[in-house]
Amino acid sequence: MEVFRDPDILEILGRYRRLWAISHASALMGWDTETYMPPGGAEERGVAQAELATLYQELILREDFTSLVERAAGKEGLNDYERGVIRVLNREISIMRKLPPRLVYELSRAAQEAFQAWRDARAKSDFGLFRPHLEKIVKLNREKADALGYEDHPYDALLDLHEEGLRVKDVDGLFGYLGRELRSILERVRSDGSCTRESPLDSTKYDQSAMERVNRRILDMLNYPWDRARLDVSPHPFTQGMGVGDVRITTRYEGFDFKRSMFSTVHEFGHALYELQVDRDLRMTPIGGGVSLGIHEGQSRFWENVVGRTRAFAELVKPTLDNELGFTRIYSPDELYRYFVEVRPGTIRTEADELTYNLHIVLRYEIEKELITGGLSVDELPEIWNARSEELLGVRPRNDADGVLQDVHWSHGSLGYFPTYTLGNTVAAMMASAYGGRLDEHVRFGNFEPVRGFLREKVHRWGATYAPKELLRRHFGREYDAEALVSYLSSKYSAC
Amino acid sequence: MEVFRDPDILEILGRYRRLWAISHASALMGWDTETYMPPGGAEERGVAQAELATLYQELILREDFTSLVERAAGKEGLNDYERGVIRVLNREISIMRKLPPRLVYELSRAAQEAFQAWRDARAKSDFGLFRPHLEKIVKLNREKADALGYEDHPYDALLDLHEEGLRVKDVDGLFGYLGRELRSILERVRSDGSCTRESPLDSTKYDQSAMERVNRRILDMLNYPWDRARLDVSPHPFTQGMGVGDVRITTRYEGFDFKRSMFSTVHEFGHALYELQVDRDLRMTPIGGGVSLGIHEGQSRFWENVVGRTRAFAELVKPTLDNELGFTRIYSPDELYRYFVEVRPGTIRTEADELTYNLHIVLRYEIEKELITGGLSVDELPEIWNARSEELLGVRPRNDADGVLQDVHWSHGSLGYFPTYTLGNTVAAMMASAYGGRLDEHVRFGNFEPVRGFLREKVHRWGATYAPKELLRRHFGREYDAEALVSYLSSKYSAC
Repeated sequence: MEVFRDPDILEILGRYRRLWAISHASALMGWDTETYMPPGGAEERGVAQAELATLYQELILREDFTSLVERAAGKEGLNDYERGVIRVLNREISIMRKLPPRLVYELSRAAQEAFQAWRDARAKSDFGLFRPHLEKIVKLNREKADALGYEDHPYDALLDLHEEGLRVKDVDGLFGYLGRELRSILERVRSDGSCTRESPLDSTKYDQSAMERVNRRILDMLNYPWDRARLDVSPHPFTQGMGVGDVRITTRYEGFDFKRSMFSTVHEFGHALYELQVDRDLRMTPIGGGVSLGIHEGQSRFWENVVGRTRAFAELVKPTLDNELGFTRIYSPDELYRYFVEVRPGTIRTEADELTYNLHIVLRYEIEKELITGGLSVDELPEIWNARSEELLGVRPRNDADGVLQDVHWSHGSLGYFPTYTLGNTVAAMMASAYGGRLDEHVRFGNFEPVRGFLREKVHRWGATYAPKELLRRHFGREYDAEALVSYLSSKYSAC
Repeated sequence: MEVFRDPDILEILGRYRRLWAISHASALMGWDTETYMPPGGAEERGVAQAELATLYQELILREDFTSLVERAAGKEGLNDYERGVIRVLNREISIMRKLPPRLVYELSRAAQEAFQAWRDARAKSDFGLFRPHLEKIVKLNREKADALGYEDHPYDALLDLHEEGLRVKDVDGLFGYLGRELRSILERVRSDGSCTRESPLDSTKYDQSAMERVNRRILDMLNYPWDRARLDVSPHPFTQGMGVGDVRITTRYEGFDFKRSMFSTVHEFGHALYELQVDRDLRMTPIGGGVSLGIHEGQSRFWENVVGRTRAFAELVKPTLDNELGFTRIYSPDELYRYFVEVRPGTIRTEADELTYNLHIVLRYEIEKELITGGLSVDELPEIWNARSEELLGVRPRNDADGVLQDVHWSHGSLGYFPTYTLGNTVAAMMASAYGGRLDEHVRFGNFEPVRGFLREKVHRWGATYAPKELLRRHFGREYDAEALVSYLSSKYSAC
C-alpha cells in the first residue's frame, strides 16, 4: 500500500521537505551543543538556532503553503496518515500564526539569560539571583498563553503546547487522584519497611569504562541498532532523533550508584526505540516522529521501570554486571532487584524512585498553575516549595539548590512541561497492563522481539498519525489512565 | 573602530544572518557525516543537505536582497571590509544566478551515484565501473562551465569556482615553469641519493592511543585553543570551521609510519588556525572565513612543510615522541628529520613527499583541462594517466586503483579543484620567504607566538576581505609566485 496517495498531500509533503531539513539541521545542532561543541561555539550556535527558528516560522506561514494545507484539509477520502499530516500541520500553522515573532524572540533571549543566571544561582543556592529572570519568564508565558488562547484556564494553552489536547481539567482529575493514592501507598511502604532499606550499592564506586561496557552490552541485549544509532555522554541524558536512520542517545557517569547510569541508558533507549520504529514511509514528513512528550515518556518509562526495575531484568543483566563491574558478584538477583526499586523519599526529582517521582510532578504542576494565574508570586516560591515538599514527600529541602532551583526547565523558558512526565508513567503502566504477564519471562530470557513488536504495532509505527489521546483510545481503549499507574505501583511495591 | 558602518551594509549583514545560519548548519552536517553519523543516516542527511542548498540559493537570489546588494555596490566611501562584503556577495549571487537549479540538482545526484561507484571501482581496481559516471560528471561540468561563462577557456570557469580570479593562463605559466624546475631538482636529488634513503620508521608500527597523545601534545605546543576547537578521527582528514568560536580538525591513524598521522594533524591545524584567527568582528558575515582554497592550503602546507618538515621541528617534538611512542628514542634528530623529508617518487598523491607532490598536481591539471575541452576522452584516461605518471614521476601505477582511480574529487563532481593544492604550496613558500630566517629558531624552541602573529596580520585576520590575488599583492608584493616554491624546495632538498 502506498501510504500517501492524494495529489494535494503529495504536493504538501514535497514542499514540506525543506521544513523537515531545517528541523533535521536544528536537531543535529541541539545534539552537538550538548555533546561535542567546544564552549567557544555557544554564541554563534545560539544565533544560528534562532535564525533557523525564525526562518522555519516564516516558511511554514507562506501563503502558498498554508493555502495548500487548507485546501487538502477540506477533502473527503483522505486516509489516516494523510489526515495525520493535515492535523499536525494545521496545529503547527495555527501556533506559529498566533505567536508574534517579537514574543518568540523575547522568550528566546530571556531564556538564554535565565539559563546563565540559573546555573549561577543554583551553584550558590541563591534564589534571589534567579528571581528576576523567572519573573520575566512567567510574564512572557502569560503573554504566550493569551496569544495562543484558551477556553477555561490560561495554563491550558501551555499544556497543549507540550501535549496536544491536554487540558487542566484532565490533569486536575489525574493528579488529584494520583496524589491521594500514591501518598497512601507510600505510607504503607514506609511502615512495611522492606522497600525502603538502603543498599550498599548506593554508594559503591565504579570504573567509568567498565560501566560504559555494561551500558553497551545491555543495549546489545535490547537489540539497539548501532548502524542507525549512537550512545554518547552528556551532563543531562537525552535522546535526539535525526530521522528513522539516525537516532542518538546519551547517558552520564557519576562514578557511583551504577543503577543511575544504567537506567538512564535504558530510559533513553525507550525514547530511541520509538523514533527507530516509526514506519519508514513516514520519514521526512510531519508525522515521522513521536507524537508527543507524554507518549514519548511512556516509552522511556516502560523500558526503564516496567522492563528494567524488575527481578527478571536483575537476573538478565547480572552476568554482565559481574563480568564488567565485578563488585556485584556478592549480590544475589534479589538483592540487586531491591537495589533497583529502593523507595527513598528525597528532595530531588531526578534522583527519585518510581513511587515518589510522581509526587514531585504534582508539586510542580500545582505551583505552575498558580504562577500562571498570578495566584502565587515568584518571591513566595522558595517557601511554598519547601512547605509543599514536606507535605507531599515528608522531606524539606535543606536549601534552594535542593528545592526550587533544582530543575532546568523554567530557565529554558518552559512552563507546562512537567506534567508530561507523569503522563508518561501512566502510559507506561497502561502498556504494561496491555502486554500482560508474559513480560516477566520475556525479560528474564532477553526475548525482547515480542516486546518491540507489541510497541511497534500499538504505538511506534504510527509516528504522529494519531493525536495522543486518540492513539491511546484506539490501541488501549482509554485515555491517560491513572488507575493503571496506581494499580501497577501498588502491586509492585506491596513488598520488596 | 567599527568595522561596518554603512547603513546599507548593516542592513545587508542583518539579512545575511539567516544565510550564514544555513551555512553553519550545513557545515555541521558535513562534519558529522564524516565523523559520528551512523551509516543509516546517510540517505536522510543527503536529502537535508540538498534541500538546504536549494533553500540557500533561493534566499540569496531574493530580489529584496540582491537589490540591496546592488545599491550598496554603487556607493562611494565604503571601507575595505564593506567592499569585501559586496565583492563576495556579488560573486555568490552571480554564480547562483547562472547555475540552473536543474543542473545543480543533476550534478548533486550524479555525484552521489558516482561516489558509490568510485568506491566500488577503486576496491576492485576496475575503471570500467566508474567510467560511465565520470563521463556524466565531465559532461555536466562542461554544461556548468558554459552556464558560468568564460573568456578564454572553459576550464577558466571551473578554476574560478575553486579559486576566485584564477585563470588557465595563470596556471599554465605557473605549472609549466614548476614542472620543468621540479623535475630537474628531482633528478639532482635522485643522483645525490641522500634524500631518497628509506627509513625503518616508514614501516614501524605504533599504538593508536599513544599516537593520539602525540598529536594532542603537539597541538598543545602549537597553542591549539581547545575551548574553540576539536580533534576527531575520520578516514580522510579535514578541517571544518563552524565559526570563529568553533573550528574542528580530524586526523587518521593507519597504525604505521607515524609521520603521516602527525603531519596530517599539523596540516589540518594550519587550516584551523586560519579560521580561528579571522577577526571576531567579521564573524557571521560573508567575509568571516578563509578567502579561497589556495590561500587556505597555503596555511596548512606552511605548518605541515615549512614548520613541520624541518630539523628544528624534529628537535622540538623528539621528547614527546620518545615519551609516548618510545621506539623513536634510538633515532637522532637528524635521523628523524631525514625520515620527515624522505623523497620517494610514487604513484599515490596523498602519500607523496613535498617535492614530487606538485608533479602529481601537474598531471591532474593537464588531464582535467583536456577532459573539459574534449581533447581527451574518458575511456583513454587510464592509459594516458599511467603514461604521464611514468613521464613526470618515473613510476607507472600497477593498476587503476593506484592510478586514475586514486582520488575522490571527481566522484564528488569536482573538476578544477586540484590546482589549488599547488597554489597552496606556492603560497606557503611565499610566506616562508617573507617570514625569513628567524623561523628556524622559533620552531626549535616552540616559540610560535611570532609565527601566529605574522600569519594573523598578513593573512588570517582579513578573512575574505580581499580577493586572493589582491591579498597576496598587498601583503607579499606579488601573486602566486612559483619561483618562491622552486627556490624553497631547491635549497631544502639540496642535501638531507
